[in-house]
Amino acid sequence: MTRVRVAGGGLTHFGVHPEQTSRAMFGEAGEAAIEDAGIDRTEIESVFFGNFMGELGEHQGHMGPIAAEALGIDAPATRYESACASSGVAVRQAVMNVRSGEADVVLVGGAERMNNLATADATDALAIAADDLYEVRAGMTFPGAYALMEDAYFDEYGGSREDLAHVAVKNHENALENEYAQFQAEISVEKAMDAPPVAEPIHLYDACPITDGAAAMILVSEEYAEANDLDAEVAITGTGQGSDRLALQDRDYLARTPAAEDAGDEAYADAGIDADDVDLAEVHDCFTVAEALAIEALGFFERGEGIGAARRGDTTADGDLPVNLSGGLKAKGHPVGATGASQVVEMAKLLEGTHHNAAAVPNATVGVTHNAGGTVASTAVHILEVVE
Amino acid sequence: MTRVRVAGGGLTHFGVHPEQTSRAMFGEAGEAAIEDAGIDRTEIESVFFGNFMGELGEHQGHMGPIAAEALGIDAPATRYESACASSGVAVRQAVMNVRSGEADVVLVGGAERMNNLATADATDALAIAADDLYEVRAGMTFPGAYALMEDAYFDEYGGSREDLAHVAVKNHENALENEYAQFQAEISVEKAMDAPPVAEPIHLYDACPITDGAAAMILVSEEYAEANDLDAEVAITGTGQGSDRLALQDRDYLARTPAAEDAGDEAYADAGIDADDVDLAEVHDCFTVAEALAIEALGFFERGEGIGAARRGDTTADGDLPVNLSGGLKAKGHPVGATGASQVVEMAKLLEGTHHNAAAVPNATVGVTHNAGGTVASTAVHILEVVE
Repeated sequence: MTRVRVAGGGLTHFGVHPEQTSRAMFGEAGEAAIEDAGIDRTEIESVFFGNFMGELGEHQGHMGPIAAEALGIDAPATRYESACASSGVAVRQAVMNVRSGEADVVLVGGAERMNNLATADATDALAIAADDLYEVRAGMTFPGAYALMEDAYFDEYGGSREDLAHVAVKNHENALENEYAQFQAEISVEKAMDAPPVAEPIHLYDACPITDGAAAMILVSEEYAEANDLDAEVAITGTGQGSDRLALQDRDYLARTPAAEDAGDEAYADAGIDADDVDLAEVHDCFTVAEALAIEALGFFERGEGIGAARRGDTTADGDLPVNLSGGLKAKGHPVGATGASQVVEMAKLLEGTHHNAAAVPNATVGVTHNAGGTVASTAVHILEVVE
Repeated sequence: MTRVRVAGGGLTHFGVHPEQTSRAMFGEAGEAAIEDAGIDRTEIESVFFGNFMGELGEHQGHMGPIAAEALGIDAPATRYESACASSGVAVRQAVMNVRSGEADVVLVGGAERMNNLATADATDALAIAADDLYEVRAGMTFPGAYALMEDAYFDEYGGSREDLAHVAVKNHENALENEYAQFQAEISVEKAMDAPPVAEPIHLYDACPITDGAAAMILVSEEYAEANDLDAEVAITGTGQGSDRLALQDRDYLARTPAAEDAGDEAYADAGIDADDVDLAEVHDCFTVAEALAIEALGFFERGEGIGAARRGDTTADGDLPVNLSGGLKAKGHPVGATGASQVVEMAKLLEGTHHNAAAVPNATVGVTHNAGGTVASTAVHILEVVE
């Protein structure tokens, strides 16, 4: 089985771009990825495209062929939809496609338009990631769902809103030099604490923003990279996927995310590593509590210890395990269908040393990305390693 | 590389079931598939689920976990969306998953609710399979798009509405004994010719109906089938996928479907067979002209010859190459996200001799399924063979 290399990555600016379409943004990110990889687009054998809410946002389904067309690619193209984990799942399928020998060169990514929707506002559109029959019709929104999870965490393990304010402060700090980030602005613990509530105990700075953007990358087989002398020193060495019941009411846990535990376990086993081997992580911090849940699910911290990690400095840029050096969903932004792919693009740049925050982790060789859908009903986890 | 066997299949009735949800229908089809395969559901390692318009139809995205939950399965679950080829693409990905050695037992299928939609009527909802910016906003509907293709076919190759009426008559005839079919009713060429126009030259009996339904199957590795002594004599020996530009205006051809040609070529090469080796086919006859285009794209007939095939008797149940012995989309019905999987389920039953029309093809050993999305912008083709 071949190892899959990241040959190039591209991002659009993440932000408020109501004049943009998903296809235009994916075209921009994809062009950047192709240029970064230094390949000809005719080499691309398959396109894997993540998008979540195109039906509601742009009155557009069937976006696989549109994604290929946006880049002038003539190859089979498939759209993946796993809510906020859409492009994480697309990356996983692309990795398996290359590993199986079906293709040597693929393009994978995602795009989302969220600020100028055709038939819903963003909160309504996001709600289709939850269970319509058992949650949405009862009035559940995503801030509300994560508020329940945060309350459950506080009840079970302790911790405080102030612990989570440190997560927001850290991620904003990490995004300060990220030219692709929606927010390049410092915040303080006090500012986060005093921000208006969205759904108690979640306040404004606990929540990621509504973002337009796209991300794309070129994945190639090791043989192709070597034969074509590509600059592709980072490999995706592990992939895992997990699912849980969609509705919170059907879960065994509110303050644990078994779908992420399963995906992490599978990815570690696939790569032949342990959590202890990981140098840095990009995790799905759609709300600050989600970062705490993620770093526990991935085995970096005992349950109940994740919430204090940013405050203790364990996960800051100068900590033992920097988390979300990109700025995370919180500060970089969260264009839903693009997020999973953007995490992999950022991680590859961190490991190869071309990221704005790479100087903070000069010796990092192993990174993890964690992309979650809904209230972590779907999760895709990937392990990236420097291999040469 | 292991061969992938079809261990069991299940269908709901295809028809007008406005009281049903996709999840309930998929539960019914999946239970039937699990029972047919004779396996325990805890053996299932992954769920591949096709759905097209759940966002508009049921205000529900993120249906992968719902599909698994409907069957009490704890395994990673992914939703695939390629318009009307959604579950054909899901089958392809499931086949590749088993071939790669990632899994020995998977469940794949699809479901669609189309008669009781949350936020659109069916014509509006189906339109998101076309290009919103360049087709839908200009007033294009799917009957209109296929009318353009049919006109182009008549202009380029000749043929007539009466030729196509024979396709409808044949497919209704094939569905007469199909207990899962929406229409178990004979029609005549005269009735089809005299039916009201939908979008000239397409009249009522040229168009498939609006259908609720689900389909599912269990696919297993050859090793698993043998080790567990499963009754699984049919293998999926070839898979192919093709894409084209989404909008008709961007195509090189209106009276040809290159995405199906590409998918067919890939599937034949994958199986190591030619079109000449095929004994029967289930093709995507969303409109009667689509059947003509399909059987030409798959290499069964020269261009211009496909339209007369039903009238000549080449593709009738007693012909050289029976097409759509299930009744096809035309008479069996077309619950969009379920159609590709249902074609594979019907084909497996035809080849193993358990289908209501199996007596018409006692010596058939090789079948092809052809599932198309939009105006054939996405296509999944599979080859099924009796292997023991």
